[in-house]
Amino acid sequence: MTPPPAGARVAYLGPEGTFTHQAALEWARRAGGPVTAEPLGTVRAVHDAVASGAADVGVVAVESSVEGYVVPTLDALLSSADVVAVDEVAIDVSFDAFVRPDHGELTEVSAHPHGLAQCAGFVTGTGLASVPASSNAAACRDAGPGTIALGPTICGELYGLDTYAKAVEDFRGGRTRFLALTPRGSAARYLERSRAAGETDWKTMLAITPSVTGPGVLARITAAFGDRQVNMSSLITRPLKAQESRYVFVVTFDDAPWGAGARELLRDLLAAGDSLKTLGLFPAGAGFRNLDGALDPDHVPVGSVTAADPGAVLDQGLLW
Amino acid sequence: MTPPPAGARVAYLGPEGTFTHQAALEWARRAGGPVTAEPLGTVRAVHDAVASGAADVGVVAVESSVEGYVVPTLDALLSSADVVAVDEVAIDVSFDAFVRPDHGELTEVSAHPHGLAQCAGFVTGTGLASVPASSNAAACRDAGPGTIALGPTICGELYGLDTYAKAVEDFRGGRTRFLALTPRGSAARYLERSRAAGETDWKTMLAITPSVTGPGVLARITAAFGDRQVNMSSLITRPLKAQESRYVFVVTFDDAPWGAGARELLRDLLAAGDSLKTLGLFPAGAGFRNLDGALDPDHVPVGSVTAADPGAVLDQGLLW
Repeated sequence: MTPPPAGARVAYLGPEGTFTHQAALEWARRAGGPVTAEPLGTVRAVHDAVASGAADVGVVAVESSVEGYVVPTLDALLSSADVVAVDEVAIDVSFDAFVRPDHGELTEVSAHPHGLAQCAGFVTGTGLASVPASSNAAACRDAGPGTIALGPTICGELYGLDTYAKAVEDFRGGRTRFLALTPRGSAARYLERSRAAGETDWKTMLAITPSVTGPGVLARITAAFGDRQVNMSSLITRPLKAQESRYVFVVTFDDAPWGAGARELLRDLLAAGDSLKTLGLFPAGAGFRNLDGALDPDHVPVGSVTAADPGAVLDQGLLW
Repeated sequence: MTPPPAGARVAYLGPEGTFTHQAALEWARRAGGPVTAEPLGTVRAVHDAVASGAADVGVVAVESSVEGYVVPTLDALLSSADVVAVDEVAIDVSFDAFVRPDHGELTEVSAHPHGLAQCAGFVTGTGLASVPASSNAAACRDAGPGTIALGPTICGELYGLDTYAKAVEDFRGGRTRFLALTPRGSAARYLERSRAAGETDWKTMLAITPSVTGPGVLARITAAFGDRQVNMSSLITRPLKAQESRYVFVVTFDDAPWGAGARELLRDLLAAGDSLKTLGLFPAGAGFRNLDGALDPDHVPVGSVTAADPGAVLDQGLLW
């Protein structure tokens, strides 16, 4: 990763005190900062700032280990012609509960809907009404005298709040992965140091839009990856806007687009008539830890069945 | 589909006036109602009501043609041992903008975050602040004198509001698909009429949790579907709670679990060590319309490239 230019402007989804703010500072630190970090109001505004050159880099959340992909980020990448992700950074996500020093009777718990979902046990336990906010930081900034606001630890100091409870999330150890965005024309410059150093461990996010849909499309695409021995680590289907039953596949694979196998794969997909767009490409390792291997058998969806289960249990789980 | 018992209790994600309320009434009408429809506060509460027998059927949104899958619904299905989806219903989603008859100066636009996203053009055009609500119906119910609330058409009458503008969504023709949930032990009874009538067009939602992760897992699973000629129409990866880089695959395929090919497929997956859980199974055709065939080439993500593009355009799109 090439360090950002001295005094680089990093736009992030604000307001100040969001997890994204924390991620933007962490990314700048790792990339060799310092930078000027500027909060913007929407994911779209961050994209626009990067595309127009008003910001050198944009930082947006893309995936939570608890909540899954961040749909507006995927959709913004799909609908931006001039922006591409060139790096990633992952941070621990833990919520503290804050109240105003002058708080009165507490009547409500406020956070972003994702924050309320991630702290559902705590929220239910308070017996108070839950009130959605546009961000966790906004919930903290705007907390009234009856509000318990949930947000990152830094929000306490940032907004002059008292800590009511620490680490109130349902599942400890959650992390969120963020993307660093640049103009598409600047991607080569941002990636050149890693390329020159012979970095071999890359990840690529690719949008694949088939020219025809119907039975076998997904099988054809995954078979194409297998044929070129390119490992697909994630695949999600996103609807084409207002095109019912029409999907674009957002795939993450373990190679750079210029890797030998990946180039052949991309040629195969193009030859099959697919429309393709590289949404992001970055050295692997800065995002979620790679935990390949045996899974904890306790961590499967409740009611799942395995080959070891007796027939009646299989019948109940599969309804076959 | 067996009609619900006379006076059946249908729980749905409320409050009154949600798209889910509309879907619950539409489902009951189609299934032969009448029913008693009861609004509940969370997707989890709907699941609990079905599991405990407090409700006969639960109705929850599962997929929007514009916004994609509804993550809390998928997660509730994954984490409910005793509930399964046995039917689906799709309705048109269109937003009207409402104001109070006694409204004053308008200062904010309020809706569920998904509603605000689906009407982003209208919201931006007003120049007013956007205020998230726990549901569109709640935004309408709780509208203050300065609020423009966005919601289904029925909210106007339901909450005594004036229509400020009709159909303010960015993309016309959006639809949302809902699931009808029953206790797992009652699924056979709900499906028996369709089975007895020789219905052959089924869809199944299946959760597949591999016992090991790493390169090749997704290719193995999709190859297993191909081997048994079972068409996978959708696949998304969901994280196992707080298990970073560990995923469960939620697959929809075009067969009943008891179909000959599907049974062999399920046996193959079990033999490979996967944990499986049928999340839903229903006669096809009531959900999104099947629009297989050529796609409108204008509806691909902007910046996508195809085999017909010259080299420099391919380079820009693929960054290879």
